[in-house]
Amino acid sequence: MNYRMISYIMGQICKVEAAFLGISLIVSIFYGDNLYLAFLIPIAALLAIGIPLTLKKPTKRSFFAKEGFFVVALSWFLMSLFGCLPFVISGEVPSFVDAFFETASGFSTTGASVISDVEALSHGLLFWRSFTHWLGGMGVLVFVLAIFPEQETQSIFLMKAESPGPKVGKIVSKLRITARILYGIYVALTVLEFILLVCGGMPVFDSIVNSFATAGTGGFSVKNAGIGAYGSAYCEYVIAAFMFIFGINFNIFYLIIIGRVREAMRSEEFRVYAGIVVCSVFIVAFNILKLYSNFGEAFRYSFFQVASIISSTGFSTADFDAWPEFSKMLIVILMFIGASAGSTGGGIKVARLILMVKNGIAELRRCISPNSVISVKFEGKPVEDSVLRSTNGYFVAFFSVFAVSMLVVSFDAMSPTFTETFTGVIACLNNIGPALGRFGPTQNYAALGALSKLVLSFDMIAGRLELFPVLLLFSPRTYRN
Amino acid sequence: MNYRMISYIMGQICKVEAAFLGISLIVSIFYGDNLYLAFLIPIAALLAIGIPLTLKKPTKRSFFAKEGFFVVALSWFLMSLFGCLPFVISGEVPSFVDAFFETASGFSTTGASVISDVEALSHGLLFWRSFTHWLGGMGVLVFVLAIFPEQETQSIFLMKAESPGPKVGKIVSKLRITARILYGIYVALTVLEFILLVCGGMPVFDSIVNSFATAGTGGFSVKNAGIGAYGSAYCEYVIAAFMFIFGINFNIFYLIIIGRVREAMRSEEFRVYAGIVVCSVFIVAFNILKLYSNFGEAFRYSFFQVASIISSTGFSTADFDAWPEFSKMLIVILMFIGASAGSTGGGIKVARLILMVKNGIAELRRCISPNSVISVKFEGKPVEDSVLRSTNGYFVAFFSVFAVSMLVVSFDAMSPTFTETFTGVIACLNNIGPALGRFGPTQNYAALGALSKLVLSFDMIAGRLELFPVLLLFSPRTYRN
Repeated sequence: MNYRMISYIMGQICKVEAAFLGISLIVSIFYGDNLYLAFLIPIAALLAIGIPLTLKKPTKRSFFAKEGFFVVALSWFLMSLFGCLPFVISGEVPSFVDAFFETASGFSTTGASVISDVEALSHGLLFWRSFTHWLGGMGVLVFVLAIFPEQETQSIFLMKAESPGPKVGKIVSKLRITARILYGIYVALTVLEFILLVCGGMPVFDSIVNSFATAGTGGFSVKNAGIGAYGSAYCEYVIAAFMFIFGINFNIFYLIIIGRVREAMRSEEFRVYAGIVVCSVFIVAFNILKLYSNFGEAFRYSFFQVASIISSTGFSTADFDAWPEFSKMLIVILMFIGASAGSTGGGIKVARLILMVKNGIAELRRCISPNSVISVKFEGKPVEDSVLRSTNGYFVAFFSVFAVSMLVVSFDAMSPTFTETFTGVIACLNNIGPALGRFGPTQNYAALGALSKLVLSFDMIAGRLELFPVLLLFSPRTYRN
Repeated sequence: MNYRMISYIMGQICKVEAAFLGISLIVSIFYGDNLYLAFLIPIAALLAIGIPLTLKKPTKRSFFAKEGFFVVALSWFLMSLFGCLPFVISGEVPSFVDAFFETASGFSTTGASVISDVEALSHGLLFWRSFTHWLGGMGVLVFVLAIFPEQETQSIFLMKAESPGPKVGKIVSKLRITARILYGIYVALTVLEFILLVCGGMPVFDSIVNSFATAGTGGFSVKNAGIGAYGSAYCEYVIAAFMFIFGINFNIFYLIIIGRVREAMRSEEFRVYAGIVVCSVFIVAFNILKLYSNFGEAFRYSFFQVASIISSTGFSTADFDAWPEFSKMLIVILMFIGASAGSTGGGIKVARLILMVKNGIAELRRCISPNSVISVKFEGKPVEDSVLRSTNGYFVAFFSVFAVSMLVVSFDAMSPTFTETFTGVIACLNNIGPALGRFGPTQNYAALGALSKLVLSFDMIAGRLELFPVLLLFSPRTYRN
């Protein structure tokens, strides 16, 4: 392990987080929150660590996959640790565990909350809370790659560890340019959503934070009643459309920008993702029809909730916990599927699902004709065995973390039902937010004990980083040379 | 497809089922049920099909994996179809769908019931019902292999399709001898349990049917209150011990019989299986301690229920639906794990779990050291890639069938909760029987609609045959030459 290089990168991350907290401080001052210390103390602490660590560039540049995983996992936990200080110091979320849960939920773009009255929070903290979504969505290390000059070898391993999906997609040959293109698209889409929301009459502050939360597929709301509080069908449709958009692989947008629209539309993952959304929206709309006055209304609620769940955002305009069991079941299945690889969304990812199903069908065909050679193709290309193997590894890790977390949460003093435990864990692990029962869209995770909250915080970060980087922290081999 | 060979084997199965129905008829006559026609009509029908089909031995002997899968899948559905006739004709289970569900549940060794008052059934039908468990446990085709002379090539494909686990274990080089050894051990253990139960004061009829249901890891009870109705701690411990025993890979018993005890005890799967049982029994016992008067009682109920669930039997002496959420969660996890490969139990199987976890750990290690060659070992031998690949295929098939079934059941008019749908489907797919909520140990599946019952019947048979044979029935490739 190249610890010098690791601490150098960690130092850069500390400086970046200090800068982002600085932006939140300015917002806080603008709204007259009077919360200087809540931001200045963590900023000072981050700079006190970050500046010494980055004074000298390390000479030993060896940097491999394991260093990449290690830096990414460690930095996400540290960011949540420092990022929760404003909540604690301001006294607005006095419990450290609660504040950590909220911040981990923010960075991991989960949007699960322990704050029952969000409208009581100050503007600066509300901004910071939603800003963590935006930073976590595209990834803080991808941001670091975009602004600091690094060697290609380091960068690819950092990007591999932080980017969602079974394969990391380099858009152009240089990684730094790739990172800049990704952030460029990300900023542009966020600004576009903001403009559309403001045009729809949403207050400017709300438009900013809701755009952040949509872009990162996070789902923190600044209203207790969620997005439904604005009572605007237009705004709901804008947000629903952008939730769907941010669940698309960003490579697709790049292809569209450079004019290869037809190629973009031929993407297998995009087609399956869009197909699942369209089918689910109509099925749910018909299933919930009797609860609403007409099909238009049922469609509007169905579209918003389906887009919110599959993109792993977690905004809500309707209490899907009160929907028929069939719609609830479909929503739970969408929770598992998640968004596209290379998007800001969470979950198992459509690409992995396609790979697994194709692998399963290939295996069935091998049973029928044991002597023929059957290979799996994805996006028109044969899939390497190593990709299939690591997809399987991901599933094992996924179900192991899932089972252990369920055991811990089921032991909680609030005695969550099986439905609550099951959907609560998946909603955190797959970075969605709301679940069923007492963790439903109109409620939150406040009632859980400290141990459950810490385990779920772990799950949120582990889920965002797709498990392997975080699990490697626990392997003694990681620390051997 | 060699349809001549397939119909010949199907004919043999019809004759075998007629013989088994004949035994049940004798029992029925012995107890004076007055139900001749209920048995004679299906016997006549089976013979009318079976005798013509087996008059001439087919000359074309080509027989491959796909024929093996096809015969096994089709014969299990046909056996359930004919096997349900006594219930319908006698009028004791007038609904055809209910009778089919009950028989599929019997053959697949699930033990999920739609009969609310089992004590009202006649002796002949109760015997037949439990007898299907015993036949389904070791497999009807394995029985056919043991008694009819067949070519090795056919036999291995039939056995592969019907035997549970990722690899079929030939005990000795000749398959017919292997099938006979397996049935020999099976009969001996069943008789041993019967003797121990009779010695404990259980009525002879009850001892027979309960031994059948334990041996096949089925779980149909002839008492409305389940095994707890006998009020005998001795009998409960005997049955619990045998549930554990029938969840062990039968190769282990063979090794013990031929004196290689040390080798048997070194089996990796056996150690993990026993370890999971011991840990779970103690954890649950401590967790439910407050519900019972002392640790001994808590241990007794914990041991019985844990052995019943992991072996996929489904007998019960306590209503685990009323246990704390933590114990319920552990029980649901045990439902997924299931028994050992090569046992009569259902579920994903401990061997597959070990393979998957080792594969996952290997993948983690590959992340740390991408250039080193890391292979997976099981039972001391390196695992072939094809075994890992087909294990992955199994998981894909498993979760696909699971998700589709949950959607159908959640749509049922009885409006099952998420917990009920989830645990009900897994309890059928993994051949356990009781689930949670309204499908709990003290209740049954009677309230479901016909479509849900048919889907669950399909799941039970698909689960017993480990999915692939049944799924191949739906592939057009299967029917191509």
